[in-house]
Amino acid sequence: MYIYETQIRVRYNETDRMGYLHHSIYAAYFEIARTEMMRNLGITYRDLEDSGIILPVYELNISFRQPAFYDDELTVKSILTMIPVIRLIIKYEVFNHDRQILCTATSTNVFVNALNRKPVRAPETVLEKFNPFFD
Amino acid sequence: MYIYETQIRVRYNETDRMGYLHHSIYAAYFEIARTEMMRNLGITYRDLEDSGIILPVYELNISFRQPAFYDDELTVKSILTMIPVIRLIIKYEVFNHDRQILCTATSTNVFVNALNRKPVRAPETVLEKFNPFFD
Amino acid sequence: MYIYETQIRVRYNETDRMGYLHHSIYAAYFEIARTEMMRNLGITYRDLEDSGIILPVYELNISFRQPAFYDDELTVKSILTMIPVIRLIIKYEVFNHDRQILCTATSTNVFVNALNRKPVRAPETVLEKFNPFFD
Amino acid sequence: MYIYETQIRVRYNETDRMGYLHHSIYAAYFEIARTEMMRNLGITYRDLEDSGIILPVYELNISFRQPAFYDDELTVKSILTMIPVIRLIIKYEVFNHDRQILCTATSTNVFVNALNRKPVRAPETVLEKFNPFFD
Repeated sequence: MYIYETQIRVRYNETDRMGYLHHSIYAAYFEIARTEMMRNLGITYRDLEDSGIILPVYELNISFRQPAFYDDELTVKSILTMIPVIRLIIKYEVFNHDRQILCTATSTNVFVNALNRKPVRAPETVLEKFNPFFD
Repeated sequence: MYIYETQIRVRYNETDRMGYLHHSIYAAYFEIARTEMMRNLGITYRDLEDSGIILPVYELNISFRQPAFYDDELTVKSILTMIPVIRLIIKYEVFNHDRQILCTATSTNVFVNALNRKPVRAPETVLEKFNPFFD
Repeated sequence: MYIYETQIRVRYNETDRMGYLHHSIYAAYFEIARTEMMRNLGITYRDLEDSGIILPVYELNISFRQPAFYDDELTVKSILTMIPVIRLIIKYEVFNHDRQILCTATSTNVFVNALNRKPVRAPETVLEKFNPFFD
Repeated sequence: MYIYETQIRVRYNETDRMGYLHHSIYAAYFEIARTEMMRNLGITYRDLEDSGIILPVYELNISFRQPAFYDDELTVKSILTMIPVIRLIIKYEVFNHDRQILCTATSTNVFVNALNRKPVRAPETVLEKFNPFFD
């Protein structure tokens, strides 16, 4: 299992007239959390794309429990329970500053060849970074 | 059952470096589809909010099958299978111009009192607009 | 002189906690207005890009006079006073439903070769669409 | 004169199909830079709003010189040359990691009473934070 936490502060333009962080923004936050989780393992998502592998989102399920507000410093906890050989499945938990849980979610991304848009196996250089956490 | 279709054209700023409509934008498109479905029944979401009832999203599940691209004119089909007494549950299907299915989703919104943020029953004026479609 | 008007309805996620259309969204609205102005002349911006010419924004000046609100149906008036040979300079006026002016702006885009990112002259096929309005 | 620098990393959803940071996002970045500049002086923009004073943008002028790309870590330099008594006028310079200048801009915000939407003088508690830098 591999767990990583990312801090994200709610921006003004991300709020809506209810005063809430708009629910569509969470998908962007999960993407940041995913990228930072990978960066922390030494994998740069930009380099991965430049090497010809893209990681489009295949499924996204979100439960919104409590709203987040402007300027809140949120923690996005990313939990990886399986080595991402074909699919990258991540569970997320979003907390506010008082460690109150606001949102939970699960995303599935697939490794895809950028040229022919066909699914591929994750590169070995990526897998070996995850290996130490799963055995 | 009540079905409504909304047309939305993909904006330039909604695309990403893969050339795809970014997946976070679908949540905003579903919100537009929801609003237009209600407007078509004579319910203005803005008036509903001004009357003290808000409709935050409680759950959102999305499956992305095929990407959408810049300037695509998408059709978002909203399907309502139950009268929204406490919760508004909508299924969505997104099609491109060739009627190829790109994305399916389900959203759950709850009727909430804007002041005390407690769940409430949908107003009768709202329910009576939906009634003719369900019996 | 060539003038074109586009209708855009303010989306929920485009509002902020002040209840206003967030000021950063106007740039996206001007882009839509620009695209629709060109489409009305028979120029598809997507086709232009696919032919190897991009039109990045070089300058954008905006004056915000009055706020726009959720669900407002805005009119963006685009005014072109010169044939866009090297630069596409457009003035915008944004009105609400009561024809009250909310915002004025000017944008400058440059025609650029997508491969070498060098400025180029607008294609003849583009210029000949604008010609009838300027003489 | 008061100068402050903020770091912002370009998010995936902020890029467009050209591969550039979309130009509409800069306005949001300037807002973050403004907020962090104030926070560094001990002024929380959220508290200011909660005290009944809002700071809508009145004018925004941007020159785009070079594009920014996905995952770039940008520096937004905010330069304040006058005490913000009635208006808050800020100049911005955006640099990439190689300290290459990408964008310059100027924003004007006005202090407004949130209730009657009339311009007001900046609160003394705000002005006294800026005073030491101007004499």
